[in-house]
Amino acid sequence: MSIFKPIQEKQAKGKVKTIFNEIKKTRKIRKIPNFWKSIAHNPKLLERTWNNLKEIMRDGALNSVTKELIYVAVSITNSCDYCTRSHTFAAKKKGATDQMIKEMIDVVGIANQNNKLVEAHQVEVDKIYK
Amino acid sequence: MSIFKPIQEKQAKGKVKTIFNEIKKTRKIRKIPNFWKSIAHNPKLLERTWNNLKEIMRDGALNSVTKELIYVAVSITNSCDYCTRSHTFAAKKKGATDQMIKEMIDVVGIANQNNKLVEAHQVEVDKIYK
Amino acid sequence: MSIFKPIQEKQAKGKVKTIFNEIKKTRKIRKIPNFWKSIAHNPKLLERTWNNLKEIMRDGALNSVTKELIYVAVSITNSCDYCTRSHTFAAKKKGATDQMIKEMIDVVGIANQNNKLVEAHQVEVDKIYK
Amino acid sequence: MSIFKPIQEKQAKGKVKTIFNEIKKTRKIRKIPNFWKSIAHNPKLLERTWNNLKEIMRDGALNSVTKELIYVAVSITNSCDYCTRSHTFAAKKKGATDQMIKEMIDVVGIANQNNKLVEAHQVEVDKIYK
Amino acid sequence: MSIFKPIQEKQAKGKVKTIFNEIKKTRKIRKIPNFWKSIAHNPKLLERTWNNLKEIMRDGALNSVTKELIYVAVSITNSCDYCTRSHTFAAKKKGATDQMIKEMIDVVGIANQNNKLVEAHQVEVDKIYK
Amino acid sequence: MSIFKPIQEKQAKGKVKTIFNEIKKTRKIRKIPNFWKSIAHNPKLLERTWNNLKEIMRDGALNSVTKELIYVAVSITNSCDYCTRSHTFAAKKKGATDQMIKEMIDVVGIANQNNKLVEAHQVEVDKIYK
Repeated sequence: MSIFKPIQEKQAKGKVKTIFNEIKKTRKIRKIPNFWKSIAHNPKLLERTWNNLKEIMRDGALNSVTKELIYVAVSITNSCDYCTRSHTFAAKKKGATDQMIKEMIDVVGIANQNNKLVEAHQVEVDKIYK
Repeated sequence: MSIFKPIQEKQAKGKVKTIFNEIKKTRKIRKIPNFWKSIAHNPKLLERTWNNLKEIMRDGALNSVTKELIYVAVSITNSCDYCTRSHTFAAKKKGATDQMIKEMIDVVGIANQNNKLVEAHQVEVDKIYK
Repeated sequence: MSIFKPIQEKQAKGKVKTIFNEIKKTRKIRKIPNFWKSIAHNPKLLERTWNNLKEIMRDGALNSVTKELIYVAVSITNSCDYCTRSHTFAAKKKGATDQMIKEMIDVVGIANQNNKLVEAHQVEVDKIYK
Repeated sequence: MSIFKPIQEKQAKGKVKTIFNEIKKTRKIRKIPNFWKSIAHNPKLLERTWNNLKEIMRDGALNSVTKELIYVAVSITNSCDYCTRSHTFAAKKKGATDQMIKEMIDVVGIANQNNKLVEAHQVEVDKIYK
Repeated sequence: MSIFKPIQEKQAKGKVKTIFNEIKKTRKIRKIPNFWKSIAHNPKLLERTWNNLKEIMRDGALNSVTKELIYVAVSITNSCDYCTRSHTFAAKKKGATDQMIKEMIDVVGIANQNNKLVEAHQVEVDKIYK
Repeated sequence: MSIFKPIQEKQAKGKVKTIFNEIKKTRKIRKIPNFWKSIAHNPKLLERTWNNLKEIMRDGALNSVTKELIYVAVSITNSCDYCTRSHTFAAKKKGATDQMIKEMIDVVGIANQNNKLVEAHQVEVDKIYK
């Protein structure tokens, strides 16, 4: 659907072009992924999203691999195919091993199950957690 | 609601008692949290859930702190209050710093936003991710 | 919050009063539950919701106990506390045994887990299911 | 995407092969569905998931057709296409009639609507349900 | 999958045919969209859904463009691709400008993020909102 | 739970104090709502969230009342009690009438139902929407 036609790299101008270049440089990629092209119709949204993501996902108290795995875990839980695929890709590129991904998936599976067991039983919060 | 009255520690017998003791020992806690008491009406469910959780959450390619943070990220995304509180508590007990939790929350926030931006724009999966 | 103050039984007039009476008679209850009082500020919504629910939840190819269990399964998955409690109550009143509820919860738990395992692995639909 | 390449039946060895055979025998199917092939990269996950599913989905206080319908109701609510298709298929194979599936869908529709009406009105839980 | 084969316009009879004609006339379209064909196997569901939708989506205190935008916002949040596409289409046909759609998407993005920040911090409801 | 103790107004310093003042002035309120106090432990998150929200929610092609109603619709769909209450409050303060809120809720209800009917029937996207 072309609610908003993706902005191709050749069409990018001004702020959009600058951000596209920064994304490619920072991510060490040659082509702009469809996500960024899709939101580029709204340069403010593109700028805000890129600046926030860049700041949030860099190494900190959590390294960037861990952050990507958390991002994937959320995306799986929200059933976002694009996000699951692209951030699993990013996690591996940054150094996540297959075993790390397997263990992340295990946690996502049991957490989703237990979240619902809690709801089913209307478990009251223990005082110690309040 | 008492669909199923929680099984108090004093009432626990047989398999339930054994698992309650193992939970307290493994987790280094004195009281059984309400979650386990709530599902203990169904000993098979208790046993299956505990055995799976114990196996999944221990140190592996991902350390157990990272696993707790992933668990919390899923629980926030699913709006499970009990799970968010209890596993944030567990993460801190296992050594997660405030800064680590802050950064996990930042990732959860932006992932939830971007998951929906992807949906809004019906972004097509890039070939490189397939 | 009183976005819309619940309509108490004494205040009910006209169409609202008629529906309140029908709910009590059909459900064999003495007091109107808060859900119906809450949506009664909008008589059309009350009427539409009650008529649809009454038609949908009655015995058919599936008996009404099974329907209540399906309703609870959806409500757990959506984390709706009120709905989980009220329809578990209704299921029991209609004859659901504790064992039936336990088994429903087991299915809800594993389905929620497997739904996410499918997403995590981006499983392709088998030809036989298309 | 081949985060983890599905394990084809010919490639299956050891525990994976044994479980694949058991799945085919229990389900009376000739080919292993993609779900099981996709998670077979992690034999423990495969074993745990199959053993739990087998135990949970068999006839009990609820018959296995009812359980499949509950499974589908959860999968629809979670927007899991694969799960919706494969378990609708399973439900029919086990004997669910078209009319039963229609009525299940009706319940899923109204439950999802009412879950949100409850949230919109912030309905308080009636004492009788506590 | 053909759980229920969509009812094609040529096959439509009786109540289904009448509603199909009304949909085309009201919506000023020449072909019945797949959604309506898919649910037409269950004429009561078709009738109930169409009558409710028609009543709810017409101009009122909110104009029908605003209502379509709200509908899309919900559909994005629920990750319903079909609904996101078809109601964005409807919104534009009714007069929504690109700028209106962009701003709706911005709101959906930040709301989804803040909803989770609230959960992460277990924010207590201020007295003024109760 | 005091994962992060809310920052009270008296305790606010530097950037946090500046933003708190701006929030009160812009919103014409005397007390800082709990949401802002809760995220103030992380000044960057506070600043980013406030700046984005302020920019997104102001009058544009959509007026700010409509934006608040869209925000509430998302919050209901995500079952965020705090967000549903606080933004319904905000919508009314900005001029949303009871009738507008009722109609928004009607749309949210039917959209949530139809989103799931689409999933249940695995409706294919019509060519015209692509």
